[in-house]
Amino acid sequence: MTAASGLRRRRDLSAVGESGLIGWIRRRGGGRKSGSREFRLEQGIGDDAAVIECRSGGGRRLRMLVSSDLLIEGVHFDTSLVSPRDIGWKAAAVNISDMAAMGGRPLFLLLSLAAPGSTPWSWVRGFMQGLRSAAARFGATLIGGDTSDSPGGVFIDVAVIGETRRPVLRSGAKVGDAIFASRTLGDSAAGLIAMRQGIGKPRAIARHLRPMPEVELGVALAERNVASAMIDMSDGLSRDLRNLCRESRCGAVIDADALPISRDVHAICARAGSQAIDLALHGGEDYGLLFTVPRKKAEELKSLAGVHRIGQIVDRGYWLETGGKRRPLPDRSWAHFQARSSG
Amino acid sequence: MTAASGLRRRRDLSAVGESGLIGWIRRRGGGRKSGSREFRLEQGIGDDAAVIECRSGGGRRLRMLVSSDLLIEGVHFDTSLVSPRDIGWKAAAVNISDMAAMGGRPLFLLLSLAAPGSTPWSWVRGFMQGLRSAAARFGATLIGGDTSDSPGGVFIDVAVIGETRRPVLRSGAKVGDAIFASRTLGDSAAGLIAMRQGIGKPRAIARHLRPMPEVELGVALAERNVASAMIDMSDGLSRDLRNLCRESRCGAVIDADALPISRDVHAICARAGSQAIDLALHGGEDYGLLFTVPRKKAEELKSLAGVHRIGQIVDRGYWLETGGKRRPLPDRSWAHFQARSSG
Repeated sequence: MTAASGLRRRRDLSAVGESGLIGWIRRRGGGRKSGSREFRLEQGIGDDAAVIECRSGGGRRLRMLVSSDLLIEGVHFDTSLVSPRDIGWKAAAVNISDMAAMGGRPLFLLLSLAAPGSTPWSWVRGFMQGLRSAAARFGATLIGGDTSDSPGGVFIDVAVIGETRRPVLRSGAKVGDAIFASRTLGDSAAGLIAMRQGIGKPRAIARHLRPMPEVELGVALAERNVASAMIDMSDGLSRDLRNLCRESRCGAVIDADALPISRDVHAICARAGSQAIDLALHGGEDYGLLFTVPRKKAEELKSLAGVHRIGQIVDRGYWLETGGKRRPLPDRSWAHFQARSSG
Repeated sequence: MTAASGLRRRRDLSAVGESGLIGWIRRRGGGRKSGSREFRLEQGIGDDAAVIECRSGGGRRLRMLVSSDLLIEGVHFDTSLVSPRDIGWKAAAVNISDMAAMGGRPLFLLLSLAAPGSTPWSWVRGFMQGLRSAAARFGATLIGGDTSDSPGGVFIDVAVIGETRRPVLRSGAKVGDAIFASRTLGDSAAGLIAMRQGIGKPRAIARHLRPMPEVELGVALAERNVASAMIDMSDGLSRDLRNLCRESRCGAVIDADALPISRDVHAICARAGSQAIDLALHGGEDYGLLFTVPRKKAEELKSLAGVHRIGQIVDRGYWLETGGKRRPLPDRSWAHFQARSSG
């Protein structure tokens, strides 16, 4: 046995990473076209959700969206800091955001909940109430799932089923397309800082605790055929932009001066000694939409209040432009750091 | 504060239990009719899977099935006893079995996998190979999911999406219907005993480690409109029968002398000092089908090799009949005991 094969044998999951695992699965045809005559897979692994076309041999073309997201105690939330209602809301909202990112609406949720038998019933009830209120807010219904004892902490997996008339994938961006963000950036990360440091900024804290998926905007962008590619911002702009560009096989330039940053974020950063632009570029969990628009259609977007043009798709590389000068856009994500510490 | 309210406040999840939690959700409309014009919920919480009707305004009537099942290290499996391939197979198979129990076929799987970063890559690869081989065996494709670091052990949640032309629910059994089991009972529990005690019975051990969902039989029973109600046997006959009867608002008599028990189960029990009938009644994880058939159609089943008539639906109560005498059917499940100890 050589040293190299010895090294290979000792490799663990942290060394391979999530993207390594997903790459391994994709190379083995995990996302290949499949299904049945009636239910055909249109888009598999590699986007915010999978797309299934339902063909009944007549009538309208129907498309379902499906995806799932884990929320784990000690990784994604800390029950000593975040209320069960907020955790329940978030468990539904982050999944619903995946539907928005595809240009779709959520319809149904499956909840798999593993919790220690000693979990107070009041905690479970609060969690369920938060989950149900987010579901109801966006028109989704809990239709099944599973529950189990957990020997560790609380493990939550929500699967969501939605519908779309025209899915918007990550892979449709073209060189020259304008890049838009649907809302101000860094609010969730700033809210987390505010929570920790006792800075009274309830709006930013709410953005952290109760993310609001942009379902109506996502559907409008899809149905008006405006967005060429789309993703929701869960890991932070710099990381989510890379995920979109990788599927579209392109690069991007972000205009640092155009980044939308709220007054709250500036105020929190001023008090906490952070850089607002760092939060805007790398602070995750904003759950706004990041999308690209063909140059000719970018004008149409003026009628959609609140969206911000922040850059442009280029052939390759990731760049940050300030005052006409380009430098490489750092690849950082605060998600892990955030996750480990709060919610 | 009264003592009673104090007690109420201290109630934890183990006191409420899975059925208590599901009841709480159902009372709050978790399974109410909902969805959209195109995707309508036909059956929500309370069966092996939810049923969604897809209506395109023309063509055939399409129905999707969705469900999810958790597999948790230390609860459902022990990585020191069971290979990653077997765990992967089981994670897919128990979900596929839910499709069979509804009279449907699996099409797509979502996998959510949380594992410590220190998990050997070879373990993850083995797990994925087992999952993919079960999926391929039954015509399903992995189309998405999520992965995460886990601060505890390995947590697996698989969601499955399937199709059916005519779903068979738990709720359709009527007084007088014959009760059938699709295969011999107690093999998985006996296989577990054999594994632990080093009794060389590879067929029974395989039944424990590599459950085979009865997809073709389930689809045949549904499409030939033979079964009035159906469930898959995961918790053991006595518990699964109760789950079916509760939804059908009826009782059942089981004919002890008609219970199909394999030679292997008899042999393992003889060596281990167990009672074969206990394993047949209460040993879980056999993943055969338990179904009811209207009296007039019971004859048709003679053409389906391997199914066993084991009892009859009655108005109320759960009974075990031996030599013409009825006694109450005990309500026990070995699932938890099994789960805690092996796979």
